[in-house]
Amino acid sequence: MTMTDTHTNGSSSPSRRALIGWGGAGLALGAAAAGGAVAMANAGNDVDPVAAEAGGAVAFHGAHQAGIATPVQDRLHFAAFDVKTDDRAEFVRMLKDWTAAARRMTAGEPVGEGAYGGLAEAPPDDTGEALGLKPSRLTLTIGFGPSLFDKFGLRDERPAALVDLPKFPGDNLDGARTGGDLCVQACADDPQVAVHAIRNLARIGFGKVAIRWSQLGFGKTSSTTPDAQTPRNLMGFKDGTRNIAGTETDRLKKFVWVADGDGPRWMTGGSYLVARRIRMNIETWDRTSLQEQEDVFGRDKREGAPVGRAKEHDKPFLKAMKPDAHVRLAHPDSNDGITILRRGYSFTDGTDGLGRLDAGLFFLAYQRDVRQGFIPLQRRLSAHDALNEYIQHVGSAVFAVPPGVRDAGDWWGRTLFSKEA
Amino acid sequence: MTMTDTHTNGSSSPSRRALIGWGGAGLALGAAAAGGAVAMANAGNDVDPVAAEAGGAVAFHGAHQAGIATPVQDRLHFAAFDVKTDDRAEFVRMLKDWTAAARRMTAGEPVGEGAYGGLAEAPPDDTGEALGLKPSRLTLTIGFGPSLFDKFGLRDERPAALVDLPKFPGDNLDGARTGGDLCVQACADDPQVAVHAIRNLARIGFGKVAIRWSQLGFGKTSSTTPDAQTPRNLMGFKDGTRNIAGTETDRLKKFVWVADGDGPRWMTGGSYLVARRIRMNIETWDRTSLQEQEDVFGRDKREGAPVGRAKEHDKPFLKAMKPDAHVRLAHPDSNDGITILRRGYSFTDGTDGLGRLDAGLFFLAYQRDVRQGFIPLQRRLSAHDALNEYIQHVGSAVFAVPPGVRDAGDWWGRTLFSKEA
Repeated sequence: MTMTDTHTNGSSSPSRRALIGWGGAGLALGAAAAGGAVAMANAGNDVDPVAAEAGGAVAFHGAHQAGIATPVQDRLHFAAFDVKTDDRAEFVRMLKDWTAAARRMTAGEPVGEGAYGGLAEAPPDDTGEALGLKPSRLTLTIGFGPSLFDKFGLRDERPAALVDLPKFPGDNLDGARTGGDLCVQACADDPQVAVHAIRNLARIGFGKVAIRWSQLGFGKTSSTTPDAQTPRNLMGFKDGTRNIAGTETDRLKKFVWVADGDGPRWMTGGSYLVARRIRMNIETWDRTSLQEQEDVFGRDKREGAPVGRAKEHDKPFLKAMKPDAHVRLAHPDSNDGITILRRGYSFTDGTDGLGRLDAGLFFLAYQRDVRQGFIPLQRRLSAHDALNEYIQHVGSAVFAVPPGVRDAGDWWGRTLFSKEA
Repeated sequence: MTMTDTHTNGSSSPSRRALIGWGGAGLALGAAAAGGAVAMANAGNDVDPVAAEAGGAVAFHGAHQAGIATPVQDRLHFAAFDVKTDDRAEFVRMLKDWTAAARRMTAGEPVGEGAYGGLAEAPPDDTGEALGLKPSRLTLTIGFGPSLFDKFGLRDERPAALVDLPKFPGDNLDGARTGGDLCVQACADDPQVAVHAIRNLARIGFGKVAIRWSQLGFGKTSSTTPDAQTPRNLMGFKDGTRNIAGTETDRLKKFVWVADGDGPRWMTGGSYLVARRIRMNIETWDRTSLQEQEDVFGRDKREGAPVGRAKEHDKPFLKAMKPDAHVRLAHPDSNDGITILRRGYSFTDGTDGLGRLDAGLFFLAYQRDVRQGFIPLQRRLSAHDALNEYIQHVGSAVFAVPPGVRDAGDWWGRTLFSKEA
């Protein structure tokens, strides 16, 4: 529920470049992307940018993992896993198998021999429900939770920046939706493609990992595309209207990507992910006056403009807002410049047994250091934000997101698990 | 999980005509639709059929409710409600308010004065999260459950065709996902539009009704558009490949629409809806051989063709299939011609606490009489279908779906609640 609303240090050339999506025409391939093999859409979307926008492939290889600074897709399936094996070699084999599957699925290809390849007597390599669907800009992003570092002799490799989150005022966390040894974030424009990807990774991981919890996100609430309108959250407001764009190399470098010297070398080029399941008391919110709603956010509802401003992307005048307004409290100017990259999704998971929708925001934020990102921001928000009357944090997790897979010989987690890193 | 695979008695002119979607160009307005005012898309989609397909409006008024024979949209939000008032006049007022809201929302307009109309001191008429989104072919379809007829002095109006479903072998129904006094099916190509609609109806109904359960469906598994490919379910198969198309007036008349003389007059032009939440044991399915999977369905996985045939839409040769194959058992030729209109969606609702995805098919089927539709079909399937090893029915409901709202003066349920009907 935090938001990032700051001045734009925009510059062009993104350090990781998707093939498609943010009007890529004219963008030079940055040096940082040079290591990345170029995954092409498998369905003729490699030329037409409009077709690519709708169904194309995002490059899997690069200095950073896709799914962070790449353009935000419409739908999400997120899964946290627990490790079930204590055999390091077996776990590493699974990571390699996962990487191979992810490489194929993000290109729009089925896993292995596909859903009807191989022997009829054997289970198919792919479950098949994504056959005939476009790549749909699928990205798969892996992260390692704090508890993973208690296993496989990894204790010394745990980054100091990967702290356990403190308990914030108002937290009401459900253990069944909290934590996890590792995670995979699947984003795609077609939800069936995202669900298919998580399901096939879970299948490949059978016996080595098991899904601890998962979350479907039906609608994006953020944008990493410059000048795009911010999608509305389930409170009907635009939030995080000046999110870091995928093209803002300087801000990405400063706030998102782990740099050499930040901690263990294996994390260089990676990032840290905070996931929070934020339930909204939407029935209460819906009985609140428009004035109160706008006061709580510090914006007008229609345009999304900060108090006293005309347009969504206008620079806010914080002192015009109530002291406990969400925008005012979350703004970098109120937080020593702290900025995070938001990638959250709206969810609706049926009802809560009391006639209310179980709905809200599945908040996802990437940052260079959780201690200088989410934690201080949320300390402030959880103590003072007027929004707290209408929301509750009910799930929580934090993950170290390693750098990108460089090429066809590379694999997820190599820099952590391989001595040659 | 039943499917309808029968010969096509296709004829053109649909009895209820959507403005868009099944290549409407050239379709004459059928006489049955004459009563319907024409709702136009509010966003310039009234001419270009391609634009309309992506985001346009479906007419709300007509002889039948939209959301049955109209083209199947990509996403679903379904809610069952319990009635909380015993004041018939208050309930009728709510139905009228709902109708007015549904009329606006399906046209892409906000409820009432909108999310920032009216007084700043009052809650907005609309919750706002669909502002700026296209109509997205939203349809809203209301149904009345058996238990509604125990209220408001309606006992004599309960149709004989609206029977309580028997307990079928293998049923493992969760009371919290079963039943309901009424339901609203919201289908749209944008899930935010469907979620917004249900939420606003729940808000308008506050104090009169409360949501009993709800279900998000992320992907359609059926088509009512002639010659379209059938979308794959989460088992990776196409099922119900010869569903009744919205243009097949004869089959709709025979199998879907309630005719004069079928029962109480208020249902003429309506239909009966069976909703079943069917959990798939996808982890078990995924470890099953391709041969077994194809034997279970009686189709090949790649093309979706019946055993021994080449193409999805080829007429099946039932005797070539195993006796317990799903297609063979569900086919009209094995069931005295019984045919239902399928409109189900895939769901994934997180995990079940045992490391497995809570995923499957939210089965929705429309029929002229439940006693000659779902019940005999499901008796047969639940006793013999090879698929039963991999699925479980965990939620169930049945509803009488009244005829369409004819014009701007008409309202949902008028034929049942108003003496002038």
